[in-house]
Amino acid sequence: MIAEILCIGTELLMGQVLNTNAQFLSRRLSALGISQYHQTVVGDNAQRLEAAYRFALSRSDVVITSGGLGPTVDDITKRVAAKVAGKELVLFPEAEAMIRARFAQYHKDMPVNNMSQAMFTPDSTLLLNAHGTAPGAIVPMGEGKAVIHLPGPPIELEPMFINQVEPWLRERSGQVLVSRYIRIFGMGESEVDQRLSDLENGGNPTLSPYCSLGEVMLRATAGAATREEAEALLPPLLEEVQRRLGSVIYAIEEDDSGSLAKSAVEAMKARGWTVATAESLTGGLISATLVDVPGASSVVRGGFVTYQTDTKTVLLGVPAETIEEHNVVSAEVAVGMAKGARERLGVDIAVSATGLAGPDGGTPERPVGTVYLGISTAQGTYPIRLQLTGSRARIRTLAVKHAVNALRLEALGETGGQTC
Amino acid sequence: MIAEILCIGTELLMGQVLNTNAQFLSRRLSALGISQYHQTVVGDNAQRLEAAYRFALSRSDVVITSGGLGPTVDDITKRVAAKVAGKELVLFPEAEAMIRARFAQYHKDMPVNNMSQAMFTPDSTLLLNAHGTAPGAIVPMGEGKAVIHLPGPPIELEPMFINQVEPWLRERSGQVLVSRYIRIFGMGESEVDQRLSDLENGGNPTLSPYCSLGEVMLRATAGAATREEAEALLPPLLEEVQRRLGSVIYAIEEDDSGSLAKSAVEAMKARGWTVATAESLTGGLISATLVDVPGASSVVRGGFVTYQTDTKTVLLGVPAETIEEHNVVSAEVAVGMAKGARERLGVDIAVSATGLAGPDGGTPERPVGTVYLGISTAQGTYPIRLQLTGSRARIRTLAVKHAVNALRLEALGETGGQTC
Repeated sequence: MIAEILCIGTELLMGQVLNTNAQFLSRRLSALGISQYHQTVVGDNAQRLEAAYRFALSRSDVVITSGGLGPTVDDITKRVAAKVAGKELVLFPEAEAMIRARFAQYHKDMPVNNMSQAMFTPDSTLLLNAHGTAPGAIVPMGEGKAVIHLPGPPIELEPMFINQVEPWLRERSGQVLVSRYIRIFGMGESEVDQRLSDLENGGNPTLSPYCSLGEVMLRATAGAATREEAEALLPPLLEEVQRRLGSVIYAIEEDDSGSLAKSAVEAMKARGWTVATAESLTGGLISATLVDVPGASSVVRGGFVTYQTDTKTVLLGVPAETIEEHNVVSAEVAVGMAKGARERLGVDIAVSATGLAGPDGGTPERPVGTVYLGISTAQGTYPIRLQLTGSRARIRTLAVKHAVNALRLEALGETGGQTC
Repeated sequence: MIAEILCIGTELLMGQVLNTNAQFLSRRLSALGISQYHQTVVGDNAQRLEAAYRFALSRSDVVITSGGLGPTVDDITKRVAAKVAGKELVLFPEAEAMIRARFAQYHKDMPVNNMSQAMFTPDSTLLLNAHGTAPGAIVPMGEGKAVIHLPGPPIELEPMFINQVEPWLRERSGQVLVSRYIRIFGMGESEVDQRLSDLENGGNPTLSPYCSLGEVMLRATAGAATREEAEALLPPLLEEVQRRLGSVIYAIEEDDSGSLAKSAVEAMKARGWTVATAESLTGGLISATLVDVPGASSVVRGGFVTYQTDTKTVLLGVPAETIEEHNVVSAEVAVGMAKGARERLGVDIAVSATGLAGPDGGTPERPVGTVYLGISTAQGTYPIRLQLTGSRARIRTLAVKHAVNALRLEALGETGGQTC
């Protein structure tokens, strides 16, 4: 089965909206093992949209549209597809009821314009919208091909696709695919590749790497006639990957919604720990990243942002002489900050960060990107030196990830070899 | 002139990469007044790419490609365009020198493969790459049409487009366009629209609204034969917009790189102020947002993250009875937090935030999204109540924007009517 994504909306051509729908749909289709060779964006223009439909249907089996399902005259997505199919739009009472219920929920009457949102070609399969007024539909286009209409807002499109379209696609593609996402921090893409190259051989399960800032994600996907058979193919591969990579793997999960912060919070929660932060160059981002994890409130106690130099003394008790003697960006100051935060908030573990995010202020001894973290527990306090590169934002983000990972490793009792 | 964007790379079809280049290029083209009717993504496949080139050139004057300029056999962008133009690729010594210089900068020798990056059709105009090894090019395709090759990484594509392609496009389009970006926080899109609808009439200058979370941006664009003439058209419109909207405008700038935090830091710096933060639901994000502004270090002194309830007493001296009597999410606690932060760090102004980010924990009296900010100066301390809606992340982000804006307004001496 070949699928193709067709995003509709002048706001995309004007650059007012970032096309996250195309990425979302591509990832999901690719995880389903469905090939895609083209993505297209067209504006709210009937003639160009009709040409785009005809062209896409000539080369793909399924054309997935996003956008243009609203109640205004600019919303031409369904009308033009119906023209291409040679059919009329008719009212679907079930869709009308859904739209009226949505308005009732907002304590409003349905404007008469919105009736157009309940109209589809007669042989369409309705897709209900749990988050907005625009239903979607799977519209047969002849010769076994179909157009699938999805609403434009990601909050409406994403659950509709996952819950209603994916089962339909799975049934048609005749194969069940099951995936696991292996999340890695602390090992570069090339080293991961080198250690696993013989496993990335396109067999079943497949193993594919994806990179993001400082992280590598591996997707392991197995295909079989049933879910049970597909599931049974995964464990040997996952165990082998774990054996080769060890503790740089921070999560193996059924979706890619995990994060380093989630793993760190869970590891600390499992030990009944509370945590505090003491931040200079990261300015509160380590703390904000931890707090972002749902359920973090039993673990994250609080923290300090000690941005100007003397606040490290005022708030955390780092002696002014230590700062003067060793520099504010130093192992000694990071240690003093972490210790001060731990003692002042009475927590089990504290993390600190001091460093140079640049672009100015670097010296040969302390170039931009020099960062010291401190980790303090009742057992002692130690520094971690990082030498990061890139923009101010990149250095900050990487410093946050290293700090969060250091908390995770400490909570797991795996602190060896962290200094880098 | 009609332009069209053609992004090349299997990683886009797989959803591994979010296509920010398409948005960047669309926005810039649209700001230049150049029409676009289609955007396409194709993978690294010569046959499909050739079809995409031919189709795009049949309907557009300029086809802008991104990606596929690397040294590997998968990088087919230039080769296929040359085939469509019926020409051979030849070595450009200036491009080779640039690539060798880039490698020398990294203290490496240029691998022989990279020579392919220096090859273009003979009549091409070279685009030097200040941030990577892949030069781009403007490639004549006959009949006055052209393909413009840009590298895939945004950090290379964006400056190459702005500095080398835009002047070329401007010259060809025969009109100089000059824009100002009017940034607004604290007034919804519909009210902005209502107050300005008679100015958004498609005349010259044009006025176009763009929305993002909690903010509205207006772009005013004037076109004329020379820059001076275009510039002269803007002031009357900008003054009228300012007269109608007042202090919800936080910046009017020549590009859209400004931010609420930048305006707030600048306003505080202009008064010689220092600032401290005291954060609960935002967990350090207000502080991190302020610190993100280059040059913030003379203004941002430091802050407190008081996430668990009793840390508001331990770190900021908010009496436990105040918390018990009024609830931790209350005006009284926000006031106590801001006052405590200001006194403990000896700053001119402090901002605090306490609230319910959800999804759980709401009550009829304090539904999810209830947030209290506190603003404390030597003149006194006052609370601001916000009732926000949406996801946990949305509530946090909006709370941060309101807090930063409250600092800005206080520094400007405009504190009336903030409570909302």
